[in-house]
Amino acid sequence: MAHIKLLNEELPGIVGLLNYSPATAQPLLLLAETLLRGPSTLTSGEREIIAASVSYRNQCHFCHTSHAAAAAAHLNAGVGLIDEIKAGLPNTDVSDKLRALLNIAHQVQGSGKNVKETDIKAARDLGATDKEIHDTVLIAAAFCMYNRYVDGLGTWAPAENEAYMEMGKQLAHIGYGKS
Amino acid sequence: MAHIKLLNEELPGIVGLLNYSPATAQPLLLLAETLLRGPSTLTSGEREIIAASVSYRNQCHFCHTSHAAAAAAHLNAGVGLIDEIKAGLPNTDVSDKLRALLNIAHQVQGSGKNVKETDIKAARDLGATDKEIHDTVLIAAAFCMYNRYVDGLGTWAPAENEAYMEMGKQLAHIGYGKS
Repeated sequence: MAHIKLLNEELPGIVGLLNYSPATAQPLLLLAETLLRGPSTLTSGEREIIAASVSYRNQCHFCHTSHAAAAAAHLNAGVGLIDEIKAGLPNTDVSDKLRALLNIAHQVQGSGKNVKETDIKAARDLGATDKEIHDTVLIAAAFCMYNRYVDGLGTWAPAENEAYMEMGKQLAHIGYGKS
Repeated sequence: MAHIKLLNEELPGIVGLLNYSPATAQPLLLLAETLLRGPSTLTSGEREIIAASVSYRNQCHFCHTSHAAAAAAHLNAGVGLIDEIKAGLPNTDVSDKLRALLNIAHQVQGSGKNVKETDIKAARDLGATDKEIHDTVLIAAAFCMYNRYVDGLGTWAPAENEAYMEMGKQLAHIGYGKS
């Protein structure tokens, strides 16, 4: 049970919190929509992988699994992508540029101060633009917020990966416009 | 110098980033305005102390000092409040409820999963409402984002506390509505 009395305790993860606090839900949803589905030279699938990977490193089961499922929906991949992201995508064909951006995201997950000039240069040498580096840092930073919001208030989350696949399709194809 | 080429390199901390990326600036500013200056039974001074204290623990000099200066403006305190917040407010008259909420915020800074039922109960026993606990967790989580955004992109920040006092007044009295 969550640490506070939600309006509808059946709503999992951040969904119950957005429902509890509409005033903060509005900017939180707009930020996710902009970062993950707004105009970008990174695909939404790539951006959802960054979000899911950071969430996994923050041990936020709800955020990791729902955003990995969204990545799977964007990439027409199966449920196996969820555990693939946990493992660092050893069997998934992603660009070296995305791997370099994921390295930056993982540094940000620990602390903004962990990002080194060499991390930036490695991404840039593989073709990453300033805007892609900016967006990667902000996606990683934003999920350090969403993850702490979801877990800091003790929300519940379905355990099984399969339970997130329908939610992943909705996030991918309908988006973050509605709480 | 920042890790990416900003439009105006003279703008410090998050200010240069908001200027670089207006699409994400809009929800980031609206979230700060809602959390720190929106309707709440916590004063804006109390909420800025929570924001500053979390930022200090994330070693984000720009965010700590600017939000501590905003707290000073709300509380009609001097520049000394900035270092007082670093030290855990040993000489400042704040309520036991705020100290219990700060403890929750400090747990969230480490990880959402660090918040224990006993932390919540301690705050509740001192009069904290569910909404106050919710807002405290989300302020702490949000500053784990802002701090990583500012430092993850290597922005510059003025060193001296005194350089932030005017900015603190603007944040306190004008707010976060404009980038």
